[in-house]
Amino acid sequence: METILKTVSRSPITNKDYPIPATVNDQAGIDQFLSVHPGKKVVVVQGMGFVGSVMGLVVANAITEEYAVIGIDLPTPASWWKICSINEGVFPVLASDPKISEYYAKSREKKNYYATCDPYAYSKADVVIVDINLDVKKQTGPGHELLDYTVDLTPFKKAVESIGNNCRQDVLVLVETTVPPGTTEKVVKPLLQECLQKRGLPVDQLKVGHSYERVMPGPKYIDSIQNFYRVFAGTDAMSTEAVEKFLRTVIRTDEFPLTRLGHTNATEMAKVLENSFRAMNIAFMVEWSRFAEEASVDIYEVVNAIRMRPTHKNIMLPGLGVGGYCLTKDPLLASWARMNLFNSNDPLLQSEKGVRINDKMPLYAFEYLQSQYKDSLSGKKVLLLGVSYLNDVGDTRYTPVEGFYNQLQEAGAEISLHDPHVLYWEEKDTWVTQDLNKLLEQDYDIITITTGHKEYRSNPALMAKLQEKTPAVIYDTIGVLTNEEIKTLSDKHMVRVLGRGDLQG
Amino acid sequence: METILKTVSRSPITNKDYPIPATVNDQAGIDQFLSVHPGKKVVVVQGMGFVGSVMGLVVANAITEEYAVIGIDLPTPASWWKICSINEGVFPVLASDPKISEYYAKSREKKNYYATCDPYAYSKADVVIVDINLDVKKQTGPGHELLDYTVDLTPFKKAVESIGNNCRQDVLVLVETTVPPGTTEKVVKPLLQECLQKRGLPVDQLKVGHSYERVMPGPKYIDSIQNFYRVFAGTDAMSTEAVEKFLRTVIRTDEFPLTRLGHTNATEMAKVLENSFRAMNIAFMVEWSRFAEEASVDIYEVVNAIRMRPTHKNIMLPGLGVGGYCLTKDPLLASWARMNLFNSNDPLLQSEKGVRINDKMPLYAFEYLQSQYKDSLSGKKVLLLGVSYLNDVGDTRYTPVEGFYNQLQEAGAEISLHDPHVLYWEEKDTWVTQDLNKLLEQDYDIITITTGHKEYRSNPALMAKLQEKTPAVIYDTIGVLTNEEIKTLSDKHMVRVLGRGDLQG
Repeated sequence: METILKTVSRSPITNKDYPIPATVNDQAGIDQFLSVHPGKKVVVVQGMGFVGSVMGLVVANAITEEYAVIGIDLPTPASWWKICSINEGVFPVLASDPKISEYYAKSREKKNYYATCDPYAYSKADVVIVDINLDVKKQTGPGHELLDYTVDLTPFKKAVESIGNNCRQDVLVLVETTVPPGTTEKVVKPLLQECLQKRGLPVDQLKVGHSYERVMPGPKYIDSIQNFYRVFAGTDAMSTEAVEKFLRTVIRTDEFPLTRLGHTNATEMAKVLENSFRAMNIAFMVEWSRFAEEASVDIYEVVNAIRMRPTHKNIMLPGLGVGGYCLTKDPLLASWARMNLFNSNDPLLQSEKGVRINDKMPLYAFEYLQSQYKDSLSGKKVLLLGVSYLNDVGDTRYTPVEGFYNQLQEAGAEISLHDPHVLYWEEKDTWVTQDLNKLLEQDYDIITITTGHKEYRSNPALMAKLQEKTPAVIYDTIGVLTNEEIKTLSDKHMVRVLGRGDLQG
Repeated sequence: METILKTVSRSPITNKDYPIPATVNDQAGIDQFLSVHPGKKVVVVQGMGFVGSVMGLVVANAITEEYAVIGIDLPTPASWWKICSINEGVFPVLASDPKISEYYAKSREKKNYYATCDPYAYSKADVVIVDINLDVKKQTGPGHELLDYTVDLTPFKKAVESIGNNCRQDVLVLVETTVPPGTTEKVVKPLLQECLQKRGLPVDQLKVGHSYERVMPGPKYIDSIQNFYRVFAGTDAMSTEAVEKFLRTVIRTDEFPLTRLGHTNATEMAKVLENSFRAMNIAFMVEWSRFAEEASVDIYEVVNAIRMRPTHKNIMLPGLGVGGYCLTKDPLLASWARMNLFNSNDPLLQSEKGVRINDKMPLYAFEYLQSQYKDSLSGKKVLLLGVSYLNDVGDTRYTPVEGFYNQLQEAGAEISLHDPHVLYWEEKDTWVTQDLNKLLEQDYDIITITTGHKEYRSNPALMAKLQEKTPAVIYDTIGVLTNEEIKTLSDKHMVRVLGRGDLQG
């Protein structure tokens, strides 16, 4: 991010440019907003990303209480447009969930969701929800395989300090960020106390807790926050009570009871363990996928047979790789915490190994293509179907398609991109086509299915189109082609599927 | 097993001794049995162990057909008593499932389940079901940790040959044994063909398939075979059809549809993958369990919170270790097959690692006790609650309690054993007490919960008894003690729980 050089922040939704303000001062705006909501409790959500902005919506549409909600983020090119958007009437997250626009419209009507970059907002807060990122910095090789990683708490601490330097002494700070286990108790709470003490304020009314959402961008975005099980803990009895009381006002706890754990270390661990469980289960399948290729077995057929057992429902499928913000980093956050916050000599070796295996998957997918294609890829026309990391969602964060794309690019291939949900691929600074028919007017040497969007699944129109094309390599990296489709396509094309040895199956 | 020296086979159920016969010849017995069942199809089940003997019962009580069933096993001290028992009216498997005795009584009434050691039986078979063991030989260290392993197919091949040397040319041989993927096609079928050819018989009517049960000894023993999903495949179209037709007569396929896979390699892989999935998920939790101890977190509380998510229901709990016949060896069978039957250079490293981690768990449990106990264990009185590997079941095969027990013994502890389901611990050649009250008349230095039997869970009488005892170390290796129980016990005893750092939780 060229934070220093850029002076405007461009909305990828409207393409509108917003000049970065010279000062963060927005006291007048905040006071004006709050003057419309006398007597209401004020909730400030720190971080207007994929989670925070929607969490703000959920609080603005709380179930049993009327809150005045202020979203806060930094006046950077990456974030300033979100602040402006929220205040102008354009919600900064595109999602297929109709509840998003419904809830946003309601909050516009009630005028109870304001956004700002001024930390002055914290001084008005009864509750501050921390929804900022805490990143793992990965050093990766050319195929995006993990070489090493570091966790730097500095930006996170800075954000906590900006709360501590402004908040009321009796505020409830609820950390929702996925943090290294131990962070709330060992980092957040002492830092807030230190700030209060420096300001000459007592610390005995400060309340600090941790609770994690299980948000899933997509068609059930809002429900994944408001209508789902949530785990929480406080750093002491007073904090625990305050967290529980607050959560009960925003979440349907009648249908989805809260789970209270004994310690914030436990809630923080639960979150990263959840994601490590998924990541490891994918990693586990990678070697079985290779074995299946060798033994002429269709691993997808095998996994579906195994999923008949309730005790084995969570067995995962392999594919091109693992993407998104959580599964790619949370096992490392946990391992780092074990060594750095609890001074253990042992990393979480198995969990780290899971990330390492997953991060190598795109490289393997490329090498398999190369082994089947044999010829040089230089100048070859390659079409990638799908760039997001998740079916039917336009999220490209840490998408495994990137490692695969990089390898193709390095080999000199001429790449065309299709994705019905991605207009612009931020990480690669490149535009993506939505019109598949138009793309298929051209011929390709290789057509690769890289995301499992429903547009590529059992779509007779797509099959017919592919049948008309000049013979090509059709490469399914995630097993979306059916046996019948493979048979039909094989009449003309060379079809290859990752994790399948025998395509006559 | 002292196969060579022993001349009798003793039933552990009735304690009756059966002299090993001088000859396997039982032609008269078999002919006599079959003469009562003219026109019925004959099913021979090879192997009268935990699976075969019960599979025989299920076939004798088939749903849509009347079969004459012959169980066959070797006239060894370990097996001969089973043959005699079945014919005498005592079923050779003790189980809490009432359907076992119900089904056995019915088969006695119909006189349609006979047992023998004479391979002559194969000559009468329409269907032979292979339910013998195929073992992995592990080389283990003093704490039962895995050093190396080998798979020797010789005994399995010998058993297949005994079928091939006697069977009809149009027999259906259905392999149910958990085998290294590839075995049915690469070993069983060629071996049977070779035998037929040596006998001057054609091989084009021979039918060979693979299907695996998901049998679970315990209260739903019969249902786990008859009323559960089953996966199958044949080595060719004729075989596939024959297997499907047979399975439809014995399994409730209306409620539990059969899953047909494209190849026996696939069904064999599915079986070992199922078990590797479980084994790996336990292994994954081991390091998190250690992390939880370091971070004062109760891993059981955390796992229960995570299991609220349907996508995470299969997350496992750690504990003393992993036991039983499947999870401890199937990942190794698979890895061996990859290298030896498919000539891959790569073992299934992750899956092997899972077994290695699990096999080390009892050693860790012992070392943790030693680190907490500090004093020498020599001469100390230790009570182990539970020796079987599974809750509420009397199965001691590969129980992790063995590694823990060995370590205690080596340290010179005086060990008392309790298990409501185990009379005699075969592997350790030792008797086990069922009367807990009597055991608790004495005092102990250490009382360890080593199996999660319901007798040890939320049992106020046991808690009261423990409260009366002289102060001891109470060591829960599987997290069955509740927070309240821990609190109560801690008034007097030193309580330690594996995977829990903070016992005031």
